[in-house]
Amino acid sequence: MTQVNTLIDQVVFAWQELQKKSPLIQCITNQVASNYAANVLLACGASPAMIDNPYEAESFTRIVGALSINLGTPSSEQMQAMKISAATAHQESIPWVLDPVGYSPVLKWRSDMVDTLLTFMPSVIRGNASEISTLAGEQSLSKGVDSTLNSEDVYKHAKVLLKSSQCVAISGPSDFILSQESDQVIEIKGGSILQPRITATGCSLGALIAAYCAVAPINTATIAAHVHFAIAGKLAYEKAPTLGQFNVAFMDELFTLNAEKIKQHIDIQIH
Amino acid sequence: MTQVNTLIDQVVFAWQELQKKSPLIQCITNQVASNYAANVLLACGASPAMIDNPYEAESFTRIVGALSINLGTPSSEQMQAMKISAATAHQESIPWVLDPVGYSPVLKWRSDMVDTLLTFMPSVIRGNASEISTLAGEQSLSKGVDSTLNSEDVYKHAKVLLKSSQCVAISGPSDFILSQESDQVIEIKGGSILQPRITATGCSLGALIAAYCAVAPINTATIAAHVHFAIAGKLAYEKAPTLGQFNVAFMDELFTLNAEKIKQHIDIQIH
Amino acid sequence: MTQVNTLIDQVVFAWQELQKKSPLIQCITNQVASNYAANVLLACGASPAMIDNPYEAESFTRIVGALSINLGTPSSEQMQAMKISAATAHQESIPWVLDPVGYSPVLKWRSDMVDTLLTFMPSVIRGNASEISTLAGEQSLSKGVDSTLNSEDVYKHAKVLLKSSQCVAISGPSDFILSQESDQVIEIKGGSILQPRITATGCSLGALIAAYCAVAPINTATIAAHVHFAIAGKLAYEKAPTLGQFNVAFMDELFTLNAEKIKQHIDIQIH
Repeated sequence: MTQVNTLIDQVVFAWQELQKKSPLIQCITNQVASNYAANVLLACGASPAMIDNPYEAESFTRIVGALSINLGTPSSEQMQAMKISAATAHQESIPWVLDPVGYSPVLKWRSDMVDTLLTFMPSVIRGNASEISTLAGEQSLSKGVDSTLNSEDVYKHAKVLLKSSQCVAISGPSDFILSQESDQVIEIKGGSILQPRITATGCSLGALIAAYCAVAPINTATIAAHVHFAIAGKLAYEKAPTLGQFNVAFMDELFTLNAEKIKQHIDIQIH
Repeated sequence: MTQVNTLIDQVVFAWQELQKKSPLIQCITNQVASNYAANVLLACGASPAMIDNPYEAESFTRIVGALSINLGTPSSEQMQAMKISAATAHQESIPWVLDPVGYSPVLKWRSDMVDTLLTFMPSVIRGNASEISTLAGEQSLSKGVDSTLNSEDVYKHAKVLLKSSQCVAISGPSDFILSQESDQVIEIKGGSILQPRITATGCSLGALIAAYCAVAPINTATIAAHVHFAIAGKLAYEKAPTLGQFNVAFMDELFTLNAEKIKQHIDIQIH
Repeated sequence: MTQVNTLIDQVVFAWQELQKKSPLIQCITNQVASNYAANVLLACGASPAMIDNPYEAESFTRIVGALSINLGTPSSEQMQAMKISAATAHQESIPWVLDPVGYSPVLKWRSDMVDTLLTFMPSVIRGNASEISTLAGEQSLSKGVDSTLNSEDVYKHAKVLLKSSQCVAISGPSDFILSQESDQVIEIKGGSILQPRITATGCSLGALIAAYCAVAPINTATIAAHVHFAIAGKLAYEKAPTLGQFNVAFMDELFTLNAEKIKQHIDIQIH
């Protein structure tokens, strides 16, 4: 059995576990993404809870299957909650995902918080090429929160982030996933050119990675979440190539994914 | 004329009043639900306003037809607004609905606020079986904000809440509505298995109950809102059994409900 | 060449510039609108960023193409951010749009902030007839945030607002646009009776005006944004006359607008 086939079996198994266990996932996310991310989690089989206040953060994080933290549009109270929940997850060995939206010199408040959050060792860091590149110490001219860099050029420099995290995922036309486990880089193709034209798809992918982390090993979980998104995006675009219809079809495809579709449409390479 | 037929006529009349009067409804709700709840109210005939700051809460609540308070993802400022608006509604005899999302020992901050809000005598308390059960003093092992209990098992214990509220509504595969008016329990069937897979449907139902309360007696209003949702969910699922399409069809059906559809599809029982 | 034909050419050119340049647009907006407004901007060709905290407001506003400020559901931190970002935009000559949602005596906190923001000379003030009328000093009995006045009756009194702004836009069944440049009033027809039944369409129009302001003269930009919305709304309604389907089709039409469609469907008059 080839290594790719083993990966495919692991992805299928992770998907099945997600359906069976429907883990409770805490998302501290931005106001743009909160509804969409919750719907993505529900469509994919998880049970979302967007608890983001500092007064309930510790007691709630203790009971969740995994945590997703996203810095899109933070408030002061959310910032406090992020720190408490990340610390709790780290202490209790609950997997957690960090999405450093907008990490850049021009957005210093959140970028300082990201630096603090890194000390709590996120299981996975995920972002677009601009964010990951800047986080990895590269100079970047990010245009706001959307990426202007190529994911392929970035992943070679992103290995330094594996000091802070088990897994690093860079999304783009191809997604690249780096892991502490090996020197191999996993590339996942699929998706659609329309996905970047819908807000919060990246943020929702971060939440979905957390959901898979609650039921599968970190590395497998990160791959499985990207595969789930890539196949749904590809199949949705085949049905509906305009933005409004695509978004509806994308939710349909996230919801109706199954083992057969995974095996048929997965497009994964090992570098 | 049977008692059920009388109820059906009252529901039809409440729906007509909602279309005619399009009452202004204040919602202090969570960031996940705010857009969806506003769209549900507009689709159903009401006029939403999500004013949720403490500095305008008192003057604004005085002019609304009804108020809906939902504790999904509170901020400190929203919490202050909730207390002010609930007190104002109570004082001015403006109907108001309390949705104690996540009420449980693990979410103490909001649960304490719910206890405070109960002193302002909500017209209606609505929630899923886990929340209502915990609120009624039962032990519960709620998994986050989604219900793991059966609504049918819970309603018998929920009568204690009628000390704080004219009406108690428990949503689930069947919805159960208890009222101070009589010992009868109203059961409403319909809806779809996909509704719990779309976030904020419950929260939006709370807002819709408030909308009906602005134009009809509390008990009738609570029944009418549940019937509106149950029929729309049922008809939407017949047209579109996948998640993305269902959500679109559900909004269509909320919007196109009419007296005939109510009479044809209502499924109501008196226990 | 007639004056209307010149306007049409300018609108087409503005649309082309928006596609080509995809400017970064900062939106400080309400929780109801944030997801929808971001999706509208992405569908129309711009690059949205909903940065709304006071700690990053100054450094971020310096790098954006335009700014949109909307007072739908403000928090204290957003209010601080609004003041900082508006002051920065004014100082740096970055175009910015003010949408005074709910401006009325009953919502004093935001109305006071609107008065403050006017001192930073918004490029465009846009609102519905009730809001613009009250802002222009008329007495109004606004029902919450939705307009109960006729846009046609209001525009004659709105000229006083041109002391604070280059352009004033009043939305309604017909949209009216006033400008410092001349005494002419531009009327734009189109859209659909369903647009007011979808929340945040007005708020999103404010964001879209900002997007066009980043690539075209203020007056042209304001007209172009209204035309973009009016044509998309009209074409969407022809395809899908129910609320859920309409909303999907509206996003499709915002996305697939092109020069030919503009020329064919634009309905503009000069008064």
